[in-house]
Amino acid sequence: MPKYSIIVEYIGTNYSGSQVQPGEKTIQSELDKALCTLTRSTVKSDDSGSSYKVKTIFSGRTDAGVHSKGQVVHFELKKPIVASRFLNSLNGLLPDDISVKSIQEVEDSFHAQISAKYRRYQYKIVNRKQRSVWDGHSLLVREPLDIERMNKALSYLIGVHDFTSFKSMRATNPAKDCIVYKAFCSKKDDEIIFEIVANRFLYNMVRTIVGTLLLIEHNKFEPEFMKEVLDAKDRTKAGPTISPDGLTLMEVGYDDYKETK
Amino acid sequence: MPKYSIIVEYIGTNYSGSQVQPGEKTIQSELDKALCTLTRSTVKSDDSGSSYKVKTIFSGRTDAGVHSKGQVVHFELKKPIVASRFLNSLNGLLPDDISVKSIQEVEDSFHAQISAKYRRYQYKIVNRKQRSVWDGHSLLVREPLDIERMNKALSYLIGVHDFTSFKSMRATNPAKDCIVYKAFCSKKDDEIIFEIVANRFLYNMVRTIVGTLLLIEHNKFEPEFMKEVLDAKDRTKAGPTISPDGLTLMEVGYDDYKETK
Repeated sequence: MPKYSIIVEYIGTNYSGSQVQPGEKTIQSELDKALCTLTRSTVKSDDSGSSYKVKTIFSGRTDAGVHSKGQVVHFELKKPIVASRFLNSLNGLLPDDISVKSIQEVEDSFHAQISAKYRRYQYKIVNRKQRSVWDGHSLLVREPLDIERMNKALSYLIGVHDFTSFKSMRATNPAKDCIVYKAFCSKKDDEIIFEIVANRFLYNMVRTIVGTLLLIEHNKFEPEFMKEVLDAKDRTKAGPTISPDGLTLMEVGYDDYKETK
Repeated sequence: MPKYSIIVEYIGTNYSGSQVQPGEKTIQSELDKALCTLTRSTVKSDDSGSSYKVKTIFSGRTDAGVHSKGQVVHFELKKPIVASRFLNSLNGLLPDDISVKSIQEVEDSFHAQISAKYRRYQYKIVNRKQRSVWDGHSLLVREPLDIERMNKALSYLIGVHDFTSFKSMRATNPAKDCIVYKAFCSKKDDEIIFEIVANRFLYNMVRTIVGTLLLIEHNKFEPEFMKEVLDAKDRTKAGPTISPDGLTLMEVGYDDYKETK
């Protein structure tokens, strides 16, 4: 059966995360519904009679309220499709806050989750006194943040570490080691973009790292506090799990990570 | 009485335009309500007993569904305020889709509408086959647009002209002459930003200019068609009044216009 991978974008605000959960509206449940409608009509038209339920595999789950510009999903179809027409129909069926950017046929060996070499996330902080209707999906922090101190704190996270301190205690996956390739804040006017790239992320990890960064800034702790939290391997030492609204999955990479800027 | 000018930002989607209209939810009605609440509490606290209704004057009206990053509004208050505290309170009282960016005390002679030397608008077009949840407030045009042809067409609008052809037939204001300082499209990836600067705009003028641009592109008319429409001084010769969602008032200028880029 031909196998496809798609890049799925979404505004996560109105969803209970990406993965199917019984009784909840999720990105996957909406995508599956649209794909099912699409392929059912295909099946009907070739008179094969039997219906085929498309099974989607995501590169990984995103929490409730987290957004995507680069979620990768693969699935198999009963027969080849015309990419542009398929995309048009799929985007027509999906709700306004989910869209599919591109589709490509992939090798049989491709697996959206297992083949992935890295994930890249961004967290957007707006650092000014007043809110603006143009802030978009972000976190407003009114007290001035010191980008150099934040980057010093983040530097301790780069490399291979046990990230237990930044992992939700509700996590069921026993994994705890991650390779962090990049963890860096850049500032433009009053917008701070925190970008983090790792081979994988634990449950709530990015949001807890941002929460710890803000805890450090708020209390004027030394940047080394981040290292103490990391070394403690104890979730209670880290800051709070911050709002998901500023967080966006930007890219899933299937080649080795190379920093470009 | 001290006089203030503020810069008001809004997402116009849920409003019947900027100006107060009986029975309609408008930007001005929401702003007036918030200012009234704010100043009423001030009056109470100084025991003067009498209530003062703040009268807001906008630089100009924006149509239903049009957005703002730079609407200027002036008003007088009974007594001086502390700017930062006033802004905090005002933004706390306003709905989520309206915010005030800044406030400054102005001379008695300042008038948000009459003192204005120019207005700058942007219209955002997304030019690609597929919609994206990240397109923001914009118009999706699926057929490829030719930026050079569009800029050629726009060049005929620059200078002093009678813009009757681009003015809504429902307009009540008899004005028809405008000085257009700039009318130019720039493209970045698949985003086209049309920017237009003029001393003033007639009712629906920007949206009708964009509608005419798209009519030219769609029918592969020569760019000179824009000049024919302009010269005709006849609204029926121009294209349709396009969706307001791509349109944003960016700036109101109180000094002579100088193009910076």
